[in-house]
Amino acid sequence: MPHSPKGELGGAGLRGQSAGSTALCTVGKTGTGLTYRGYDITDLANNAQFEEVAHLLLVGYLPNQTELDQYKTRLIGLRGLPQPLKDALELIPADAHPMDVMRTGCSMLGNLETEQDFSQQVAATERMLALFPAIICYWYRFSHDGVRIDTEDRSEDSIGGYFLKMLTDKAPSDLFKQVMHTSLIVYAEHEFNASTFAARVCASTLSDLHSCVTAAIGTLRGPLHGGANEAAMEMIENWQTPDEAEQNILRMLANKDKIMGFGHAIYRESDPRNALIKRWSKELSEFVGDKQLYAVSERVEAVMKREKDLFCNADFFHASAYHFMGIPTKLFTPIFVMSRLTGWAAHVYEQRANNRIIRPSADYTGPEHQEWVPIEKRC
Amino acid sequence: MPHSPKGELGGAGLRGQSAGSTALCTVGKTGTGLTYRGYDITDLANNAQFEEVAHLLLVGYLPNQTELDQYKTRLIGLRGLPQPLKDALELIPADAHPMDVMRTGCSMLGNLETEQDFSQQVAATERMLALFPAIICYWYRFSHDGVRIDTEDRSEDSIGGYFLKMLTDKAPSDLFKQVMHTSLIVYAEHEFNASTFAARVCASTLSDLHSCVTAAIGTLRGPLHGGANEAAMEMIENWQTPDEAEQNILRMLANKDKIMGFGHAIYRESDPRNALIKRWSKELSEFVGDKQLYAVSERVEAVMKREKDLFCNADFFHASAYHFMGIPTKLFTPIFVMSRLTGWAAHVYEQRANNRIIRPSADYTGPEHQEWVPIEKRC
Repeated sequence: MPHSPKGELGGAGLRGQSAGSTALCTVGKTGTGLTYRGYDITDLANNAQFEEVAHLLLVGYLPNQTELDQYKTRLIGLRGLPQPLKDALELIPADAHPMDVMRTGCSMLGNLETEQDFSQQVAATERMLALFPAIICYWYRFSHDGVRIDTEDRSEDSIGGYFLKMLTDKAPSDLFKQVMHTSLIVYAEHEFNASTFAARVCASTLSDLHSCVTAAIGTLRGPLHGGANEAAMEMIENWQTPDEAEQNILRMLANKDKIMGFGHAIYRESDPRNALIKRWSKELSEFVGDKQLYAVSERVEAVMKREKDLFCNADFFHASAYHFMGIPTKLFTPIFVMSRLTGWAAHVYEQRANNRIIRPSADYTGPEHQEWVPIEKRC
Repeated sequence: MPHSPKGELGGAGLRGQSAGSTALCTVGKTGTGLTYRGYDITDLANNAQFEEVAHLLLVGYLPNQTELDQYKTRLIGLRGLPQPLKDALELIPADAHPMDVMRTGCSMLGNLETEQDFSQQVAATERMLALFPAIICYWYRFSHDGVRIDTEDRSEDSIGGYFLKMLTDKAPSDLFKQVMHTSLIVYAEHEFNASTFAARVCASTLSDLHSCVTAAIGTLRGPLHGGANEAAMEMIENWQTPDEAEQNILRMLANKDKIMGFGHAIYRESDPRNALIKRWSKELSEFVGDKQLYAVSERVEAVMKREKDLFCNADFFHASAYHFMGIPTKLFTPIFVMSRLTGWAAHVYEQRANNRIIRPSADYTGPEHQEWVPIEKRC
């Protein structure tokens, strides 16, 4: 990550400065921990469905079975892209950046189903939860395969399963659906990360939810934020054996190349999300008969620990896990969007409930007073 | 503006806290002043064309005549919406929020002409400067009048004149074009306001320019930021005489209603932009034979000063000025976008040149550790 010459001085990325309060999440309170509304990420990722966690973040508590069933039924009923949104997605070329597609799809939806006042915020969020997998899959399948998929497909009852079904045209295995639950849970929320903070800045002018989420998608698009799992995949897929991986990592470290998927701005000892997804990457590797990618990934992890004392963050074993499920690398970050939407929206609700416009100051480093010079006298 | 219960305490909207540095702008250094790269806003607004100020902000200095001519010629050459962007705009209904149209138009453009690396940032900005008037006018004229306008129209050499020509199908008067220069200049830049700060947060992840500007548009859309001139217009157009206006203002003040277009979060004594646009509102009033709106506006200004010691900000006399030029009220904030684009982009360049990801902390106010309860045991 590029550092400002100001280093740790005030104003440099607001690091360590409070920009507000939240009841949603703690990150790294003990050096390793991540909690959503007080629940440990490990408990959530190992036991819950993603829709349970969405309910926790957005409604405020873990649902009982009846509430969860009703919640999932409601989300399933909201599937199906409006025709003008499909038409807009068909206008986007196959070589577009998938995050530009997500950003545009969300923004277009805001024209068709505008949040008229804040009483509609929950309905608007649920509609986005139901539609985001369809936005990316409709564009991807139309632009790459020339197929207009059925976005009202109700054969899968989970958001992750629905995504895989539309992407691959096949009913996903129970294992794949379980991995999607874990993946969507661990990416759902992370306090005042940059995309969430962008959503809150937008919300602080009392703008609409689609504007807030559009801003967040554009912010997540940056390579310093989302996209680390894509970069990790592009790296590890080049290596055939653990030994080849080790040689290349050592060479990259010697060159001071950035190696994506390691370390974290806030976690100091480990990223609690790594073990949760790594377990599934291993199981998927066995399930699909992989002889290479998981072993390469484990070696990269070991070398980074040995050489740099750096740990895998949430992104590194996501790369292989997604790959084993047949997901094209360039769709990794849009999955992040489907998940983090829950955190973004919950933060927008919080900002609205206790708002002051977010308008910081700046240190002025420009010229002092400049005398006006008429254009005909300028050199 | 809603205030946090925390009032002036740290974290409440980051008020007064530095979030970085800028060489672009000072706001209220003397209680009244606004400077762009050291030049006083009064000098700029009374003497320059908007394209001169765009050059100042984006290239870094005031151009000489040859440079200005070249700059304007280049921007004129960049006019003309790509066909898929026109097609997308035709999908947006007439009752959409015009800022949703701007946000979506900008986002869609990012799919068609993606900024591939930062060496393209100036070209991408110039294209947006050339296209933004066409995005809003193409949608507006198609959805409201059923007309597909010629967005490659080169009959007007300024951005403001081009906008008025596409909107009205008539060559705008010299007076109207001059007013557009002043208006676009006074709205061009305002330090770390919320929309600009959203653009910088987005830029800090090293995302692309279209994402940053899309985030900024969505943020400007909020009623606490853009839109005050629209709200002022909707208020003053109801009143036939200055006396009627005065009675209503007194009643609204007694009811503690918010009166838009007055006061400012940072300026304490006056908003330097008010005198600059008020002068043109008066001249336009005489030019179009207005017997009502300017007089009503002046009375509102006098009553607010007398009763509350509050001054007009940049937005109040913009309402009548735009109205006199035949601009529909709902297009006022999109004009703000055409102008502030220059400030947003200049801030993105600054952020990129000296970047650290903007990732503040939050004060946690949620529950302490929650024990996991299996779903079948929840009440």
